[in-house]
Amino acid sequence: MTWGTIATWRMAAKGVDKASQLLENNGTAGDAVEELIKEVEAYPFYKSVGYGGLPNEEGVVQMDAAFMDGDTLAQGSVAAIENTLHAVSVARALSHEHYNSFRVGEGATKYASLHGFEMTNMLTDRAKARWKKRLKEIEQEHLNPYNGHDTVGAVTLAQSGSMAAATSTSGLFMKKQGRIGDSPLSGSGFYVDSEIGGATATGLGEDIMKGCLSYEIVRRMGEGETPQEACDHAVYPFIQKLQKRYGKAGEFSLIAMNKNGEWGVATNVEFTFCVATDRQPQQILMANPGPDGTTVIVPVSQEWLDAYEKRIHESE
Amino acid sequence: MTWGTIATWRMAAKGVDKASQLLENNGTAGDAVEELIKEVEAYPFYKSVGYGGLPNEEGVVQMDAAFMDGDTLAQGSVAAIENTLHAVSVARALSHEHYNSFRVGEGATKYASLHGFEMTNMLTDRAKARWKKRLKEIEQEHLNPYNGHDTVGAVTLAQSGSMAAATSTSGLFMKKQGRIGDSPLSGSGFYVDSEIGGATATGLGEDIMKGCLSYEIVRRMGEGETPQEACDHAVYPFIQKLQKRYGKAGEFSLIAMNKNGEWGVATNVEFTFCVATDRQPQQILMANPGPDGTTVIVPVSQEWLDAYEKRIHESE
Repeated sequence: MTWGTIATWRMAAKGVDKASQLLENNGTAGDAVEELIKEVEAYPFYKSVGYGGLPNEEGVVQMDAAFMDGDTLAQGSVAAIENTLHAVSVARALSHEHYNSFRVGEGATKYASLHGFEMTNMLTDRAKARWKKRLKEIEQEHLNPYNGHDTVGAVTLAQSGSMAAATSTSGLFMKKQGRIGDSPLSGSGFYVDSEIGGATATGLGEDIMKGCLSYEIVRRMGEGETPQEACDHAVYPFIQKLQKRYGKAGEFSLIAMNKNGEWGVATNVEFTFCVATDRQPQQILMANPGPDGTTVIVPVSQEWLDAYEKRIHESE
Repeated sequence: MTWGTIATWRMAAKGVDKASQLLENNGTAGDAVEELIKEVEAYPFYKSVGYGGLPNEEGVVQMDAAFMDGDTLAQGSVAAIENTLHAVSVARALSHEHYNSFRVGEGATKYASLHGFEMTNMLTDRAKARWKKRLKEIEQEHLNPYNGHDTVGAVTLAQSGSMAAATSTSGLFMKKQGRIGDSPLSGSGFYVDSEIGGATATGLGEDIMKGCLSYEIVRRMGEGETPQEACDHAVYPFIQKLQKRYGKAGEFSLIAMNKNGEWGVATNVEFTFCVATDRQPQQILMANPGPDGTTVIVPVSQEWLDAYEKRIHESE
């Protein structure tokens, strides 16, 4: 039977392995996407998601996450949540509530605590050292403080035909207190409909939400476009529009999978992602913008993977 | 020259007057929509927006608001902001920032305070009395706590051709701490593109965001549908879809105006709204769902207006 999953960035590889095993053994789309994201949230060397994620300007790790059930369109989101190991699990729990399914700040943290989710200090020594170093650099060199906004986002397709999507991020490094991005926002950071397919986004949330790109990709797939066509047609014209109208466009990378397990990607920067289906064992691939509104996708090289391993374990 | 504005609910009437004067005198779309919303925020007898708005479960008035510039697609949003008289003005200020343009909770309140926005205790004696009464009712009668979620949302078209949209709400009465709805979310609560038109939503945010309805209405107008067609085609099939897939659908009312000052509305409940253009002095109208996915719109009667005035001034 058909199953599949696609997720943003190289960091999702172990999560995609885990999700693939679940889906192969007839697990649900919801369980698979939650386990996928949790794997990334728990790994201390990914500095843009969960434990080990980089803090805001005040040294506090504030996280955004979302979960969507493609069968019912039920959604749960948290934003600017603190001290919570698995923000995605809190979002999933909220998706079961008809009212109050999107919670932010202290209210989100309180919900997580009251409902028994694992609470921990999310600021690792390593992230704290980077924050202190960055504060000094900004002061001395007047650097733009914002970089490192790599959300993990994923779409899963179960053998039953059910689909789910989820995201999790610690957001922009050095963001202002309470800043939230596109990751917890329906249609911008994520969207999924089991009768069509799903999409998630990573990049500069402030610009992604100007275009509701995840919704637009799913809508296009619903009109018969392949996931790759839908990604290309939604993303590249919007980047041009934003450059013309707003004067600039941040980094955008979108992934999509349809109900048949076919997938697509569009990006305006070098972007790695992971994909696995019943017909294709997991691959880590790299996408780059190609000519005339297209996307060039190649397997990542062993050299790239080696350099990546070295880079993420560097102390600074 | 063409100008126009449309806004949700009877409560927007004075704001629409103010916006109309500005637009008639060649004011900007942004100024007009901000002044329109501010008028509603400041009025203590509207219990779902701004000053006098009903509090959350803990007795705290937490507000959501957004502003979007249809020329540049720039957006600013605040959610779960406290003690701030004009949340919409904070959202507009944030729309000028490329980073950190959506802020929630304590970070949003801090931004407002630091930037000199008027801070005040938003919990009026009247709202506090209603909250206490409701707490008792819920305890004694096991009532569903949630009602009174009437967002003010508006779209403006300036003589220059520029458009803007904005929203403001105190959200669900008795909402949980940190709960946010669709009003601050791009594509769900609002969307505007000066080359096409704009839309805003009011109703149960948790369900509106499942459909990205404001974006979908604007997209449909961009494909040549009239505002009324776009509203009808976006809203009614989605309500049916949600009933089928999610098992139920909350209250939804959407308004739209295109770049020519033509407008439309769709709703699944009795819904009042205000509209004014260079060709049509302000009218307060009432919309109801009609047969076969259509909307029936009639002027509100004097009787209805008299009953409304009496109702909003009732002490309880």
